[in-house]
Amino acid sequence: MSLIVQKYGGTSMGTPERIRNVARRVMRWKAKGHQIVVVVSAMSGETNRLIALAKDVSPQPDVRELDVMISTGEQVTIALLAMAIKDLGAKAKSYTGGQVRVLTDSTHTKARILEIDEGNIRRDLENDTVVIVAGFQGVDAEGNITTLGRGGSDTSGVALAAALKAEECQIYTDVDGVYTTDPRIVPEARKLDRITFEEMLEMASLGSKVLQIRSVEFAGKYQVKLRVLSSFEEEGKETLGTLITFEDDITMEQPIISGIAFTRDEAKLTMLGVPDKPGIAYQILGPVADANIDIDMIIQNVGHDGLADFSFTVSRGDFPRAFELLDKQIKPHVGARSVEGDDKICKVSAVGVGMRSHPGVASKMFRALAEEGINLLMISTSEIKISVVVDEKYVELAVRVLHKAFELDQVPA
Amino acid sequence: MSLIVQKYGGTSMGTPERIRNVARRVMRWKAKGHQIVVVVSAMSGETNRLIALAKDVSPQPDVRELDVMISTGEQVTIALLAMAIKDLGAKAKSYTGGQVRVLTDSTHTKARILEIDEGNIRRDLENDTVVIVAGFQGVDAEGNITTLGRGGSDTSGVALAAALKAEECQIYTDVDGVYTTDPRIVPEARKLDRITFEEMLEMASLGSKVLQIRSVEFAGKYQVKLRVLSSFEEEGKETLGTLITFEDDITMEQPIISGIAFTRDEAKLTMLGVPDKPGIAYQILGPVADANIDIDMIIQNVGHDGLADFSFTVSRGDFPRAFELLDKQIKPHVGARSVEGDDKICKVSAVGVGMRSHPGVASKMFRALAEEGINLLMISTSEIKISVVVDEKYVELAVRVLHKAFELDQVPA
Repeated sequence: MSLIVQKYGGTSMGTPERIRNVARRVMRWKAKGHQIVVVVSAMSGETNRLIALAKDVSPQPDVRELDVMISTGEQVTIALLAMAIKDLGAKAKSYTGGQVRVLTDSTHTKARILEIDEGNIRRDLENDTVVIVAGFQGVDAEGNITTLGRGGSDTSGVALAAALKAEECQIYTDVDGVYTTDPRIVPEARKLDRITFEEMLEMASLGSKVLQIRSVEFAGKYQVKLRVLSSFEEEGKETLGTLITFEDDITMEQPIISGIAFTRDEAKLTMLGVPDKPGIAYQILGPVADANIDIDMIIQNVGHDGLADFSFTVSRGDFPRAFELLDKQIKPHVGARSVEGDDKICKVSAVGVGMRSHPGVASKMFRALAEEGINLLMISTSEIKISVVVDEKYVELAVRVLHKAFELDQVPA
Repeated sequence: MSLIVQKYGGTSMGTPERIRNVARRVMRWKAKGHQIVVVVSAMSGETNRLIALAKDVSPQPDVRELDVMISTGEQVTIALLAMAIKDLGAKAKSYTGGQVRVLTDSTHTKARILEIDEGNIRRDLENDTVVIVAGFQGVDAEGNITTLGRGGSDTSGVALAAALKAEECQIYTDVDGVYTTDPRIVPEARKLDRITFEEMLEMASLGSKVLQIRSVEFAGKYQVKLRVLSSFEEEGKETLGTLITFEDDITMEQPIISGIAFTRDEAKLTMLGVPDKPGIAYQILGPVADANIDIDMIIQNVGHDGLADFSFTVSRGDFPRAFELLDKQIKPHVGARSVEGDDKICKVSAVGVGMRSHPGVASKMFRALAEEGINLLMISTSEIKISVVVDEKYVELAVRVLHKAFELDQVPA
């Protein structure tokens, strides 16, 4: 018998029928002899409805009071799920964040969990009760209600799993796991049984939006195994999704590359003819960061005649603002020649912890792309990832070529 | 400077605009130098919406979980009102029942308040903060969320006023006070500045539905002055409503009769030719009570030849059930001759503590009705009330006649 934390998102809790489905799923896991703690989100759309109502009353709602209000979304779903589980004949009990108590700091609307008192939950579990906890919320030391911000329910699930030393934390979503790449682009994409935390972080930050990065980081830090599963699979046809775990747990047959990730909404800016002197990167990028524009890749080429070219990428939404800033303010200030921009680019990345011990991944990647005539606009590498920037018209082709080149459609031997 | 508790119902909190209106009203009282505690209900319709949602998930929702859910209605409105008051430049802080803490017993969906910890509220008030408390809810000794049942927000307001020894508890509704009778029937009906608790209880139980009886009883018991006011009066045109207070506080000029109350949904049952022997009333009324039918007036006439007639009134909705019970089961059992029924009757009552010291009220009442040819079907009296049952076609006339006979349209000298 082991203790499992299951987290269900707003889509899984979206209607009475879906809530009863979740109750049946919980009962099936319980019937296998597990102790179950369920963490739930608000019904899909509910948090946005509450925020809109607050803004109808107050243009800039006080954050303490906003938390009092939006925390009710999960308070409704914990009660509904507890009712549904009781109707199936099991003992069940709901807990708000404050009732658990999930102690957080006092940063309303984006609080951080400090401590979880697992005493009450432990007692209920030993009494054969399914415990249902409101995700996304906690209380500060003064008893004020707090919420954890975007993806907060995933974080609640992981934090509870850590506090209770759960066997694993199961995150139920509308996809059935993590894939080698987006199956809409590569029909042969394969669901991964396992992936390491580092790989998952790279995949997530590169646009495979299965899990919130924050909860993956949190799980890695607190050594909680995460499992991504679908809450929409029919009874009897359920799969085990993808387990996100530690490198040690993964067998020797680990492939070199685990997946191909990509992001579409990229843009590139280049400042040409920049005087090549110390501090120039800061003079260019400092004002960009000050304008709250996130910078991703940065490349400074070798200078000639004391002049260099300086390129970086930003989100496509930030492109017009970044371009104007560079052209109107930074260019005259640093004495550069001109500014060029391209907001029709994408980033494609190969991710895998296996590349640590396998040289030659980059050259294999570049060759595969070159054979298809795909020009590389920028290149960036980390220990477990190689990213290239390409013209957006090539993105699907690049993903397919790389997926095939690294044999991701083949089940590892 | 005095401490005032104000309670606003669901209609007053029904829209963002109305919530901002409530905030402005609170600020006007605060500007007069009062400390203000506001108790609010859920937005009108919200509690019913939540109950319907619960029933969509579970046909008979678990009551502990139902309380977790329906308590969110007030949790939303406390936050919205706190936001709106802060926007007007005052300090404001919301409290759920658990945060106050309003300690109740564990009778979910109809809990009773046991104790209120006023420490936090007192501290906020001394810090010039408007305190906003969720009505209708509390927590039991184990920290489970409870709700107080129908009219629970009024009870919360009164209980807080008692715990804080408030100057008065103001109940804001959609009427501007308690009237001598229903102004829709008697246009000359006058708003009472003051009324005693006993009179208010008789008026309320007789169908003047301004306040929940439970909160009036509670206020009387804990010596909390209640004031009924309208939350829809325009700024600058506000009146002071009606103060419900103690007999000692009311001047010597107190009129004999304070108001004329009436109920329309009455029905009368008579069992004729009942053997006149001890225990017969119990044999007739015992089974009626066992069938959960509330009995109001009871009359047993003088027996002749060892036979008596026995009459009582019930709610009109219970009439068919009561008639069948009497005719099919009780009549054969007690050996009565026949059963008659009349569901076209109404009850009209004159209420006033003044009648204690003024004999002759009953005869004045009967004469006034007789002069208009209104036949009295039943009569019942208590220390501060005289009720008569009349044919329903006479109800408006009877109310008008009595209102005039007792000069209720005249301001007391």
